[in-house]
Amino acid sequence: MTSHTTGKTAVSLLGLGAMGTALADAWLTAGHPLTVWNRTAAKAEPLVARGAGAAATPAEAVAAGDLVVLCLLNEDSLDETLAGLDLAGRGLVNLTTSTPGEARARAAWAAERGARFLDGGIMAVPPMIGVPESGAYVLYSGDRALFDAHRDALAAPAGTVWAGDDPGHAALTDVALLTAMSGMFAGATQALALVRRDGIDPAGFAGRLGSWLTAMAGWIERSGGVLEDEDSNLAMQVAGNAVLLRTAEEQRVSSELLAPYYALMSRALETGRPLDELLLTEG
Amino acid sequence: MTSHTTGKTAVSLLGLGAMGTALADAWLTAGHPLTVWNRTAAKAEPLVARGAGAAATPAEAVAAGDLVVLCLLNEDSLDETLAGLDLAGRGLVNLTTSTPGEARARAAWAAERGARFLDGGIMAVPPMIGVPESGAYVLYSGDRALFDAHRDALAAPAGTVWAGDDPGHAALTDVALLTAMSGMFAGATQALALVRRDGIDPAGFAGRLGSWLTAMAGWIERSGGVLEDEDSNLAMQVAGNAVLLRTAEEQRVSSELLAPYYALMSRALETGRPLDELLLTEG
Repeated sequence: MTSHTTGKTAVSLLGLGAMGTALADAWLTAGHPLTVWNRTAAKAEPLVARGAGAAATPAEAVAAGDLVVLCLLNEDSLDETLAGLDLAGRGLVNLTTSTPGEARARAAWAAERGARFLDGGIMAVPPMIGVPESGAYVLYSGDRALFDAHRDALAAPAGTVWAGDDPGHAALTDVALLTAMSGMFAGATQALALVRRDGIDPAGFAGRLGSWLTAMAGWIERSGGVLEDEDSNLAMQVAGNAVLLRTAEEQRVSSELLAPYYALMSRALETGRPLDELLLTEG
Repeated sequence: MTSHTTGKTAVSLLGLGAMGTALADAWLTAGHPLTVWNRTAAKAEPLVARGAGAAATPAEAVAAGDLVVLCLLNEDSLDETLAGLDLAGRGLVNLTTSTPGEARARAAWAAERGARFLDGGIMAVPPMIGVPESGAYVLYSGDRALFDAHRDALAAPAGTVWAGDDPGHAALTDVALLTAMSGMFAGATQALALVRRDGIDPAGFAGRLGSWLTAMAGWIERSGGVLEDEDSNLAMQVAGNAVLLRTAEEQRVSSELLAPYYALMSRALETGRPLDELLLTEG
């Protein structure tokens, strides 16, 4: 059902949050026939003005595209939106953030309904979509033939990275990377609170903060996955982090975001075990 | 007491941990007369082989340099090392990580003893020292005249950034940046635990992790200090972080590092207040 006029994959997109809207923009810009559906229909209007079709129901959206892309809030939204639809013969791409287990379950669910399935994890914030130099990419895993058949369409919003046939592997990598980002954002939040307390302009500080984190991310890239090597020995890190906690107290900033990592580092120092290994729970 | 033969500031360095040793290397490479002292004397040997003088006591080290640099473990090490020394007329540079309040107290302590004082915060891990393209720098605050008089020496190991006459301001900026780094490392530790559980090679994953964090640090740099803007709306972030927590459970990885930020984001969503403002405590 590739469009006869353009030879390009017709895309249906369900979900027009900030990310869905950015994806829609990228597909329109790349000339793909696009049908959109959103629970709040008004969000579709600017896209319709640019040439997208608006589906009145999820069923209509699913019927309209070669590739049916789901970019919803969570598992509940997926269940609600897809309930009772005829998916036989359809190619589904789930970009809703899922756990690896949920992605595997969704793949099995799709197979039971005769649909082909790809799970994807978007490694970008919405402003990076459709901007090739942003480095944005989407991890995909699941049905390789579906990925290959629509590679051009998948590549329009961002780069594509194949994460394997196990439909859970895109989600695992996605979640691991988002987890690290969440930690970085938690740290940045704490840093902004410290300088805010002293009346330092957060906007000016954000530039210094971003370039520092960029330098340190480069260090993680070269670390080979061992964060507590000799050059950054753990005793120094524990001593350094004690200063971070004391500063939080001085500045009257809660240390709730910092304290658990300090406790983990202290345990690593006591036990001689790698930090990440200490997080593996029994059973 | 600038060296007569080289015209370069004579530096005395107390403390030869990984960072102190990297600093010593940089001063030797730049041709500064260097005297070193360390509690465990053997650490000085490779530096002595390269031309450094070894002081037998802290007093001897303090007497030997135009600039007396302290790079010790913590406040207790500073107190112990400096106890009873004659510091009158000396120029002290404290690179031991301190809270802003501790740096201000140390400046007052030095003034009482007739010494001039700079507090510094090193924005680098040791391998970045002496490598201009690494982007390493040291934040300085306190006695501006001392900073200006020895700027060449201070600039040999890393870039120099003036953080103001308040001796606590280098420490405040330093601690805020280290706090953000600590959050990033906590996130990376959690990410490594997730992939380790699935038998994915951490060394291979570290490359992808570092480049992802680099991209996201760029986003913080451009954010102007507002992490919860419309493009990354908080409801989506909270939904996304719920997936991170569920994945941790699936992978049998503790969520102790993730849970506090999720709780804070949930509070921000409920109250409509900025994340970092919620961390400011009363009283």
